[in-house]
Amino acid sequence: MPPSEFREALFGAPHVGQLPAGARDAITDVPGVFVGQVTLEDGPVQTGVTVVCPTPASTAHAGGAPDASAPHAQWDPFRTKIPAAAAVINGFGKSVGLMQIEELGVIEAPLALTNTFSVSQVVLGQLRAAIAANPDIGRGGPSLNPTVFECNDGYLNDMQAFAVSDAHYAQALANASPVFAQGAVGAGRGMSSFGLKGGIGSASRVVETAGATFTVGVLVLSNFGRPSQLTIHGRHVGPVLDERLAQPEQSAAPERGSIIMLVATDAPLDARQLRRVATRTGAGLARTGSVYGHGSGDVALAFTTAYTVSHDALGRVAPAALVPDALLDPIFQATADATEQAILHALFAAESVLGRDGHVRRALADVLPDWATL
Amino acid sequence: MPPSEFREALFGAPHVGQLPAGARDAITDVPGVFVGQVTLEDGPVQTGVTVVCPTPASTAHAGGAPDASAPHAQWDPFRTKIPAAAAVINGFGKSVGLMQIEELGVIEAPLALTNTFSVSQVVLGQLRAAIAANPDIGRGGPSLNPTVFECNDGYLNDMQAFAVSDAHYAQALANASPVFAQGAVGAGRGMSSFGLKGGIGSASRVVETAGATFTVGVLVLSNFGRPSQLTIHGRHVGPVLDERLAQPEQSAAPERGSIIMLVATDAPLDARQLRRVATRTGAGLARTGSVYGHGSGDVALAFTTAYTVSHDALGRVAPAALVPDALLDPIFQATADATEQAILHALFAAESVLGRDGHVRRALADVLPDWATL
Amino acid sequence: MPPSEFREALFGAPHVGQLPAGARDAITDVPGVFVGQVTLEDGPVQTGVTVVCPTPASTAHAGGAPDASAPHAQWDPFRTKIPAAAAVINGFGKSVGLMQIEELGVIEAPLALTNTFSVSQVVLGQLRAAIAANPDIGRGGPSLNPTVFECNDGYLNDMQAFAVSDAHYAQALANASPVFAQGAVGAGRGMSSFGLKGGIGSASRVVETAGATFTVGVLVLSNFGRPSQLTIHGRHVGPVLDERLAQPEQSAAPERGSIIMLVATDAPLDARQLRRVATRTGAGLARTGSVYGHGSGDVALAFTTAYTVSHDALGRVAPAALVPDALLDPIFQATADATEQAILHALFAAESVLGRDGHVRRALADVLPDWATL
Amino acid sequence: MPPSEFREALFGAPHVGQLPAGARDAITDVPGVFVGQVTLEDGPVQTGVTVVCPTPASTAHAGGAPDASAPHAQWDPFRTKIPAAAAVINGFGKSVGLMQIEELGVIEAPLALTNTFSVSQVVLGQLRAAIAANPDIGRGGPSLNPTVFECNDGYLNDMQAFAVSDAHYAQALANASPVFAQGAVGAGRGMSSFGLKGGIGSASRVVETAGATFTVGVLVLSNFGRPSQLTIHGRHVGPVLDERLAQPEQSAAPERGSIIMLVATDAPLDARQLRRVATRTGAGLARTGSVYGHGSGDVALAFTTAYTVSHDALGRVAPAALVPDALLDPIFQATADATEQAILHALFAAESVLGRDGHVRRALADVLPDWATL
Repeated sequence: MPPSEFREALFGAPHVGQLPAGARDAITDVPGVFVGQVTLEDGPVQTGVTVVCPTPASTAHAGGAPDASAPHAQWDPFRTKIPAAAAVINGFGKSVGLMQIEELGVIEAPLALTNTFSVSQVVLGQLRAAIAANPDIGRGGPSLNPTVFECNDGYLNDMQAFAVSDAHYAQALANASPVFAQGAVGAGRGMSSFGLKGGIGSASRVVETAGATFTVGVLVLSNFGRPSQLTIHGRHVGPVLDERLAQPEQSAAPERGSIIMLVATDAPLDARQLRRVATRTGAGLARTGSVYGHGSGDVALAFTTAYTVSHDALGRVAPAALVPDALLDPIFQATADATEQAILHALFAAESVLGRDGHVRRALADVLPDWATL
Repeated sequence: MPPSEFREALFGAPHVGQLPAGARDAITDVPGVFVGQVTLEDGPVQTGVTVVCPTPASTAHAGGAPDASAPHAQWDPFRTKIPAAAAVINGFGKSVGLMQIEELGVIEAPLALTNTFSVSQVVLGQLRAAIAANPDIGRGGPSLNPTVFECNDGYLNDMQAFAVSDAHYAQALANASPVFAQGAVGAGRGMSSFGLKGGIGSASRVVETAGATFTVGVLVLSNFGRPSQLTIHGRHVGPVLDERLAQPEQSAAPERGSIIMLVATDAPLDARQLRRVATRTGAGLARTGSVYGHGSGDVALAFTTAYTVSHDALGRVAPAALVPDALLDPIFQATADATEQAILHALFAAESVLGRDGHVRRALADVLPDWATL
Repeated sequence: MPPSEFREALFGAPHVGQLPAGARDAITDVPGVFVGQVTLEDGPVQTGVTVVCPTPASTAHAGGAPDASAPHAQWDPFRTKIPAAAAVINGFGKSVGLMQIEELGVIEAPLALTNTFSVSQVVLGQLRAAIAANPDIGRGGPSLNPTVFECNDGYLNDMQAFAVSDAHYAQALANASPVFAQGAVGAGRGMSSFGLKGGIGSASRVVETAGATFTVGVLVLSNFGRPSQLTIHGRHVGPVLDERLAQPEQSAAPERGSIIMLVATDAPLDARQLRRVATRTGAGLARTGSVYGHGSGDVALAFTTAYTVSHDALGRVAPAALVPDALLDPIFQATADATEQAILHALFAAESVLGRDGHVRRALADVLPDWATL
Repeated sequence: MPPSEFREALFGAPHVGQLPAGARDAITDVPGVFVGQVTLEDGPVQTGVTVVCPTPASTAHAGGAPDASAPHAQWDPFRTKIPAAAAVINGFGKSVGLMQIEELGVIEAPLALTNTFSVSQVVLGQLRAAIAANPDIGRGGPSLNPTVFECNDGYLNDMQAFAVSDAHYAQALANASPVFAQGAVGAGRGMSSFGLKGGIGSASRVVETAGATFTVGVLVLSNFGRPSQLTIHGRHVGPVLDERLAQPEQSAAPERGSIIMLVATDAPLDARQLRRVATRTGAGLARTGSVYGHGSGDVALAFTTAYTVSHDALGRVAPAALVPDALLDPIFQATADATEQAILHALFAAESVLGRDGHVRRALADVLPDWATL
């Protein structure tokens, strides 16, 4: 079965590009990566938390059951840091943690996603989790660098209700698993894209380079795009979508959205190379119609599970043998393709949602069932 | 006549997007912008120089005849600088001048394009032109910041012949005009894209924002892309192109190319905003299939002709009234659309070229005449 | 009376450089800038909040009484934004808001300083204040970009007590005034520098350029430096300080500190120029002995009160007439000098503090009363 | 003999800081680093070329004789690249090569220094040397990234004479040696600092960290600073210098200079870490009185000789075991101290020079023999 046929099965979305997807076509195809979510849906509260939890490949059991013995339960990201780098494509956003990642090239907490006004509560959740595991944090030793990413879901969700608590972060982390839902779930519950329901999407690609096979996985929190821009698999269906939504004023309205794009790989790369990888999400994003709108915080972060950086090293440390830059092109292609695919998955998987003040975002499946023939 | 019909007439390329093009669908639709070129074609020498010459709107006669009284002949860019900013999408390149542009937000010489090994000679050409106009340069006063951009045309052109001289730069500048050729001309003579003949391409879009009408023009030196990646107007024709070129080894080869994307506008923007505009070329570039390959120096620069910055100011200076950031989206859309359109124009306009050692790059029109039905 | 004599009077610190200070030798010499503070000192809790509140020059009454009619009480920074730019000298820090400042060149909330673990509560305080003034924030419109800076005061203060609340932020803002205390107060209560007591310090310089007189003011949260590095007014007293502190192990310990340097000016500059100004704090910082230690988050931000950026502009907007780049050197000199001076003021003003677990940081005045003769 | 006594012997300059210098107190104390120079002094021509040639530690014979068997004669930097990173402190400059270094983290040519107008000729020299060793450059393979740094020596040297040729670059490279002259030599022949004669200066420091001993070496091309700013070893002698030069108009004149600061180390660091190291030159520079003047191109680059990056790698490559970030502080201290020391060496070593049009720059030794007692 060729990849394209196989892929039609996942939410009905077309398969992007010529590279094969991993077994789940999701970020958790990268060994050691787990995703946990909490969804809050209660009238005007339509929001949540999604956590992407990288664990070192050496301790990870990809696909293992999400029980108490899951690696992420035993793994302390503060003492065993993960190489990472971010790329800010459009910086109209309030994500936290990027300055230190740029300087040091590591993350030391799971990557959390939520709505804009709930960043503070999730930061507290990360601090409390880190202190519980390392009572010295902020006392004798340095403090934790929280890593929390956000989009503004204020059209559907009453952000001023501050509904997300630090306990929700802990709960999302606790249920992290290789299997997770997409669409209007977790942090994606209240998000919109192209005037349709957006949310959480994920995809993966498998590549060969440098004499080995690597997986690149992407998870997006998709909350960007005006209806007229929507392009599905090269097909510019935006003008039709515009008509069907019958919201000309909304289509012309400035974008208030954003997209967070998290890239995981088991390819051994250093922080400089991971920044190069993160930049390639911009290519996948553009294929869906985005021009990186003024009001859209388009932020990407890439990390590798191939090796870790110890908090406590007292001497020189040998990193993993790295993929040379000249052999990165397959990984770049995989990143762009998986980003576009993940955005499509978010759109195709999302169900319609009724939120605050009667606001509704409809599912792509409802509005554009005939997208492939337009 | 709707825009899309009109546009089919220009090299047979489809019209990108929903915004109308300017009168020429070229960068010279922006008042005050002139383009001059010198093409060298002599056996193994297939290269040249292209110059984009911005002049202040106040002195420009858009569309005026390219004679001795053309504004760019009277305009001294060193004393009357042009606001500008660059965006480095992938920094595998040897363009010069970017560091100072980043610091000061202006250019003080025309923008010159050539092959990688000829940068030095064109820099000398810029220095000599500036010294002729300002004998004090590098003596009592500061020196000039040359702005020369390059791609590697070594597949068709014998770069080691160092065929471009400073006189060619002067010649290109002298013949700058609102009307200019596209395709395998000027700096684009020896360039390749997607395994086909690339080169010089240009396009423009007209937008309304902030209560006024503005033009955004793009000129590209297109030398990037592997055959399998080519996407024309959303149609992924790369796999067919791959077969027809019958060069599987070449298609899989690492990219050696690059693309330079110059954006002109008459919208009044400051350097920070122009950097935002330059970044949007990456969206247009991605739609053609690029994932910003490792070996591709993907570099963009945006400038405005709406106002100038005096070299000799002794007191406070009021810039033009600027377009607010919140109203930039139409300009961003125009930049992405015009970039994609300019790349298509380069491909559709380019003729086949026979270069050094029997190397040939064929025209898209020859290889993919049926692209629209694939 | 020459400046140097005059300056000896302020905390006994020497006057740095040849430029005169403003009337208060503090950041509030810049018209429209107010500083408010809340200090928490209760056994193991030794921390607080400091707020620097810029107001547009047009509405400011410099030196006015800090009563209910103070400009900062009527001024809505979300709708009337302040031009600003940051410079990250060493990014080991957790300050929030920098990504959007880099993209848009404005701040839209007062600048708040606190301890690392209290950033979240102060962010909540900023959100609540902005929502109170603009009920639409995060609903129909975009959300606020909080701007909170931090240092780690964990040696003296029990950060895990999370003692700072959003109400403390509101309280600090409410008592903002042109007159404020320095040393072990506000966010500086628990901070250390060079093994001594650090904290809040401020200074100003007055310069002539571009045909006008401008003031540059700096406020630092000083929490950096190993004892052996301390240099006072060019005098490297660090080795003596090392001996007197009799803490060789501490002196050799890795730096856990940080410094936040906020620069205010009434010179009209755009965001690109303000970034250049912010960068010059690094020169003043270096003169005190810092080499921008690995563990020190050295972060600067510069803003101008000379003009504002409206949230609601629907058309082109003329900014103020700007100081040309070629005339910035006096402002750069003032920034470096005032930064060094502000750090000295923090050290000379700070009293000894007894904090958690019997930890003590002694005042410079106690340990090095003879610094000028060493 | 304590370090400070020993150091007084080198040009009479005081020893900076508490760290010991290497055997030569020069950049060539780092094993594998060689320096070659050509000085042009002929009436109005007062300029030259200086080359810093890093060679991999594995093939280097530190201190070996500069004969035909010297490692740099056998070493091909294009195929065996050197890890490097730059830090732009003030970007008013025309150095070339930085964009690609930022992207890829390596240099692939020796580091050349010259005057601003001669950059093009030295670039040609680097291209020709690389082509001679690798005939495929710019043909089948990628082209070379030239790395040429510059300052404006136009006060003493007639830059418009374009006196430096590509042959001078080759000659400088050919005579590279561990032993080299400082002051008014090589690229430093025509340079000025603080209204005095500047030029080439170098220094080194030896540190212990991560269980090993490493050397940090710095070479500067010093061409910055106004007289009133000069600070020697903490002593602000600028006001006296100002009087003695009796050039009040010159002292107040905008800075036209620049400084290039090259840092070598045998500590194994990756490109991200080397950028952190390069940034610390700004601390040493500031101690001499610089505030990073508007017109001064203050550019730093750091490289390591501890390992190399192969141009031809086909599989994963293990870099050297790296020094962890948390153990970098001694290297940061050494970088700042050696930078300040190198600037002092340039000033103390330089002899007075008479250049074009009767322009003279006097030696510090002539003008301020009593600097230590001022």
